[in-house]
Amino acid sequence: MKKLSGVSVSPGIVIGKSFLYQGNDFSEIPRYAIGKTQVEAEWRRLQAAIEAAVADVRALHDKASREMSKEKAAIFETHLLMLEDPEFQDQIKGKLETDRENIEWVVWDVSREISSKLMDSGDAYLRERAVDIADVSRRLMHKLLGIKEFSLADLAEDVILVAHDLLPSEVLTMNKDRVKGIVTDLGGRTSHTAILARAFGTPAVLGLSTVTKEINAGDTLIVDGSAGQVIINPGKPALTRYQDAIKQYHKSRDKFLSTVDLPAETKDGHRVSLKANIEIPEEAAQVIRYGAEGIGLYRSEFLFLTPGQAAEEERQYQAYSEVLKAMGELPVTIRTLDVGGDKVSPNFKSSDDKNPLLGWRAIRMCLALPDFFKIQLRAILRASVYGNVKIMFPMISGVEELEQALALLKEAKAELRQKKQKFSKKIEVGTMIEIPSAAMTADVLAWKSDFFSIGTNDLLQYTLAVDRGNEKVSYLAQPFHPAVLRLLKMTIDAAHDRGIKAAMCGELAGATFAVPILLGLGLDEFSMTASAIPLVKQIVRGTTMESCRALAEKALASSSYKQTETLVNSWLAEHFPNK
Amino acid sequence: MKKLSGVSVSPGIVIGKSFLYQGNDFSEIPRYAIGKTQVEAEWRRLQAAIEAAVADVRALHDKASREMSKEKAAIFETHLLMLEDPEFQDQIKGKLETDRENIEWVVWDVSREISSKLMDSGDAYLRERAVDIADVSRRLMHKLLGIKEFSLADLAEDVILVAHDLLPSEVLTMNKDRVKGIVTDLGGRTSHTAILARAFGTPAVLGLSTVTKEINAGDTLIVDGSAGQVIINPGKPALTRYQDAIKQYHKSRDKFLSTVDLPAETKDGHRVSLKANIEIPEEAAQVIRYGAEGIGLYRSEFLFLTPGQAAEEERQYQAYSEVLKAMGELPVTIRTLDVGGDKVSPNFKSSDDKNPLLGWRAIRMCLALPDFFKIQLRAILRASVYGNVKIMFPMISGVEELEQALALLKEAKAELRQKKQKFSKKIEVGTMIEIPSAAMTADVLAWKSDFFSIGTNDLLQYTLAVDRGNEKVSYLAQPFHPAVLRLLKMTIDAAHDRGIKAAMCGELAGATFAVPILLGLGLDEFSMTASAIPLVKQIVRGTTMESCRALAEKALASSSYKQTETLVNSWLAEHFPNK
Repeated sequence: MKKLSGVSVSPGIVIGKSFLYQGNDFSEIPRYAIGKTQVEAEWRRLQAAIEAAVADVRALHDKASREMSKEKAAIFETHLLMLEDPEFQDQIKGKLETDRENIEWVVWDVSREISSKLMDSGDAYLRERAVDIADVSRRLMHKLLGIKEFSLADLAEDVILVAHDLLPSEVLTMNKDRVKGIVTDLGGRTSHTAILARAFGTPAVLGLSTVTKEINAGDTLIVDGSAGQVIINPGKPALTRYQDAIKQYHKSRDKFLSTVDLPAETKDGHRVSLKANIEIPEEAAQVIRYGAEGIGLYRSEFLFLTPGQAAEEERQYQAYSEVLKAMGELPVTIRTLDVGGDKVSPNFKSSDDKNPLLGWRAIRMCLALPDFFKIQLRAILRASVYGNVKIMFPMISGVEELEQALALLKEAKAELRQKKQKFSKKIEVGTMIEIPSAAMTADVLAWKSDFFSIGTNDLLQYTLAVDRGNEKVSYLAQPFHPAVLRLLKMTIDAAHDRGIKAAMCGELAGATFAVPILLGLGLDEFSMTASAIPLVKQIVRGTTMESCRALAEKALASSSYKQTETLVNSWLAEHFPNK
Repeated sequence: MKKLSGVSVSPGIVIGKSFLYQGNDFSEIPRYAIGKTQVEAEWRRLQAAIEAAVADVRALHDKASREMSKEKAAIFETHLLMLEDPEFQDQIKGKLETDRENIEWVVWDVSREISSKLMDSGDAYLRERAVDIADVSRRLMHKLLGIKEFSLADLAEDVILVAHDLLPSEVLTMNKDRVKGIVTDLGGRTSHTAILARAFGTPAVLGLSTVTKEINAGDTLIVDGSAGQVIINPGKPALTRYQDAIKQYHKSRDKFLSTVDLPAETKDGHRVSLKANIEIPEEAAQVIRYGAEGIGLYRSEFLFLTPGQAAEEERQYQAYSEVLKAMGELPVTIRTLDVGGDKVSPNFKSSDDKNPLLGWRAIRMCLALPDFFKIQLRAILRASVYGNVKIMFPMISGVEELEQALALLKEAKAELRQKKQKFSKKIEVGTMIEIPSAAMTADVLAWKSDFFSIGTNDLLQYTLAVDRGNEKVSYLAQPFHPAVLRLLKMTIDAAHDRGIKAAMCGELAGATFAVPILLGLGLDEFSMTASAIPLVKQIVRGTTMESCRALAEKALASSSYKQTETLVNSWLAEHFPNK
């Protein structure tokens, strides 16, 4: 028995057998020099690998044509063309002869080079081809290295998935019914694996550094996603203890869930709205179980993350429609594409930004690529007939950007009208307040917005000039910094002066320690990870607006975050003595 | 005759002969595979190179011992030890035998590896050794490639310096009397070469991309630093025209300089203070010629930039004393070390920051390395006896950081008292306002500050979440964004409420188009590149506070920067119709 501690990213406890997944990680491609006489042999190895890969892809193509759409089959046709492309082979041959290195390395190097050239091109079509090149070279690598390909979608029995790291595409396509828990070496709370694990309700512990070296295939594992612990081959006492804990966990969750139908209302009758943040359509059904009164943030990025799949209008429309149908009458706020910064998509590379968080991302990218942006806007508009959709723009820095985005939305509507495609007439359009300049000019932005949604993660980073992902300075990212509280107040007041609602969809909205102050500042809507809703509701229902307002006033007068922390702690001790 | 356009970084026109400087740029080190039989020959080449390098370094050591201090000579002793270090040679031999590549490449690769390991170590001493390793490997490379070393300090005749790029150390040590102009392929307005060229009053055009390929050694060049143009081998008419222009330039400069003794006072009697930003002690004497009423920003970073030279207390003390003595009674504001972000020092590497502008820099680094920071504080305190010094802390995000910095200053004073070293009793200590959270809480910071100095470059970047160095988004960095103007007003008002002065040392303070609004907002002190002072003074003296206040009020009520731009343009057209 061995116990390891990692990052708790998705709650719940599960016991099961480990499945060690090697994935497609070729970070350690062998590289060695070869003699002149070996060049010919290496070239023959490549020919054999190509032949085998072509046979595989042909089979996949036939299977896809039979079982899936023509469109899906077309991907494999592209891959066949690439595998047999004489220019690609010439390039490899040239490099093999000049550099005299083993063929795996040469193939990898040439593919990377082509791929990065395609990525850098401004053309969306070419960028997709980069993903294809990566797929083809991965396939060749499997053949050359004698690795058998395995897809997580093919898992046939219940397992705990153990991996060094996982690609978003791997987590998205894995057999969710079979993967009972996830354990990885890399990753933290905000990694894609974490977000998806929470979305699927799969207990997960990430950031375990060397767990793949500690676990053998078929080991019995206990994954305690709530505590961030993994136990390898537990003894009988531990097993019994955790089996009891699982029962206990389910019981207490049931108790929390019993609040689902109660309103989020303070003792003195102030009602707020608690909503959920989601990443993928599949989550929509789940959030209602937690009592979400709608979706306050649907992060549309995930539609753009699957390599090899462009986010065509049709595919987006399907996804948005699915969410809206699942939510019925409840409102669904879709944030338009927010890639760049720390949110990297294989289809959008901005690695040449020296400060990606201050770079070409989100609305900046969308305004620079209006045709691309309008695809998303049309897809949302078309889906709007299925429910109550709202749109919000991320990373708005000033009124000019908001006006440009609104103008493109108008164009998208005109295009649909011309094609006689229907969309709802009353879609609310909101502005995300996550850049200091937006908060500082919230009074101006309020005139053109139907609502605000505050993104606290970014707002905090910019206001304090701190990259929260940088552990040397993350200590500075204090949500109770008086500057942050003042900006929140300015934003909420500006919204109310104009008669619109102020929502929050950043991490802070689901942090119980922050809820009393946010209530006191007048925040109307809290959007968070669905599983946090019951606890936040308990706080709201256990207090009065009067006392929250008094707390917020004191916090606004504080000169430092430490002072506010002390204030909040004694407030919580007074109002929730049993927590 | 050929005309090229680049970035105008330092004004003035000069005509002279080109000097093509190759520098120490080894970006194109030859790399090729060698056969097993060649290994021995390559190893012998290295031995010969080491022998030759040792002889050179011995000679330098002897010369330094005779002509300079023992301290300077000690550097060469370190280099000798490194050249003859058996471990270093073993590592090279090992790599040579395994990789079988040419010896230049192997030496380079091994040095880079050692150097980067040393850089990553937390130890300041080891980081300095990294610079030594780089020096030693450069010397070996010269020997191996048969390049004769040349120092820009040895220039014996007047030249126009033409180079691909220049290191700060090269610009600092060049023979300033001989280099009449600078022309480079790389670099922009804020590069070190640009800053130093302005400091030395040397006309310079940078960012010419391929100018080193267009110019031959000994070509006649006209460098028009004001227009950002370089003319290669001009014909007679062009020569005559530019000779006239040089006369004209000197005449108009003389006219400007005639305002030196006039106060920076509006027509209705409002007096402000115009000061200069400097980088190196040598500039101090020059700024007085432009009418600077002191130094509003002495960027101490340059003391830390010269590779191989640690910023020991003694060296810093000398530099600060030199500036203070040169300025006499006039105030000199020293900004404590601000490296990191876009300001990279070879002695401080923070390349693992994914967003350096939001990373470990300036006061964050200094507070984390208190002993290191106190060296600088003691050096400033000791120099304070020679004049009127002020200290300011960069990148303060909140009152906690300011309190920590002030506590360290107190400690530094106590240490000096204990050693019975003198320092001035009345040194003002100010806070730089360049992070949104500082501007938002200026009222709190004012209680602990003797003055504010607004850093507009950073304030703009964080407020708008824009890296100005990223050309895809730099269009967003609008100084007239209403959020920026509101933050400036909050800062200035907070200073005045507390009875302290508000200065500005960012680029904006010297931008004539911004001066009227800044005056109207109540800014007390403008610190800028010295050469901009006469023009700014002309604006100040040509207007009234009343009309500036009215302009600022309108600007604050604008909803967008475009609106303010229009306002300012028509104001300027009305008040300065002849500009």
